[in-house]
Amino acid sequence: MRKKFSFRSRCPISSALDLVGDRWSLLIVRDIAFAGKRTFSDFAGSDEGIATSILADRLKRLERAGIVRKEKLPDNRKTNIYTLTEKGADLAPIIVEYILWSDRYLPEHITDEARVFASKLRTNRTAILNDRMAAGREAMPGRS
Amino acid sequence: MRKKFSFRSRCPISSALDLVGDRWSLLIVRDIAFAGKRTFSDFAGSDEGIATSILADRLKRLERAGIVRKEKLPDNRKTNIYTLTEKGADLAPIIVEYILWSDRYLPEHITDEARVFASKLRTNRTAILNDRMAAGREAMPGRS
Repeated sequence: MRKKFSFRSRCPISSALDLVGDRWSLLIVRDIAFAGKRTFSDFAGSDEGIATSILADRLKRLERAGIVRKEKLPDNRKTNIYTLTEKGADLAPIIVEYILWSDRYLPEHITDEARVFASKLRTNRTAILNDRMAAGREAMPGRS
Repeated sequence: MRKKFSFRSRCPISSALDLVGDRWSLLIVRDIAFAGKRTFSDFAGSDEGIATSILADRLKRLERAGIVRKEKLPDNRKTNIYTLTEKGADLAPIIVEYILWSDRYLPEHITDEARVFASKLRTNRTAILNDRMAAGREAMPGRS
């Protein structure tokens, strides 16, 4: 571990934000759990246009925090594959609450696809969550 | 409105983070909903030691985003009182998920008081959430 995380207080909200409370980290967790992405170039290709230097930094941070796991597949030793640990997959309920909040308060700003997904979440949250949390931990999920 | 918020994409997660996804904004929402705080100096006194310049900026941003409301009480025209709008109070479920996540993954780092609160949340989440969401919208809540 290169350096320790510094925590501003012993508050659980503040401490979680000290690990993942920047504008990018949860988007990487989103990409893995909700979009089936697994590689650096997958993440770099997301719509938000993350700079590769920031992406590299956030992946290292998330790995150090025990949220993301970096591995290689037996048949491809060149490409790093990023999956979620249990600790990382358990961030999915937070992400779900962000989706529901945006669906309620930024409805005209988000995609129609996101609105449909939010609607499914409202009626079937537990099953969808369990499915996404499991998918995020697999090295080769079915690409949707 | 001084300037518009810029959104990186039409993803609901990303868009919510564009509004409140910095390390401080949710702590102000926490202070209002979960700690009965209402004034600039209340927030400045929280354990994380926010710089007053950052606090002033974040309060303005949250007000522009329609999350926080600034008002004055009839008997005190000097002090600004900050409460949550409905949009702001509805961030409480996100905060609750951060609390539960930290209770699970950073148990030795957070306060005993926070652990007790997390335990209560696990058994009585809906009632506590409704209570905190209502409290955050009141200008003079009972200080706990």
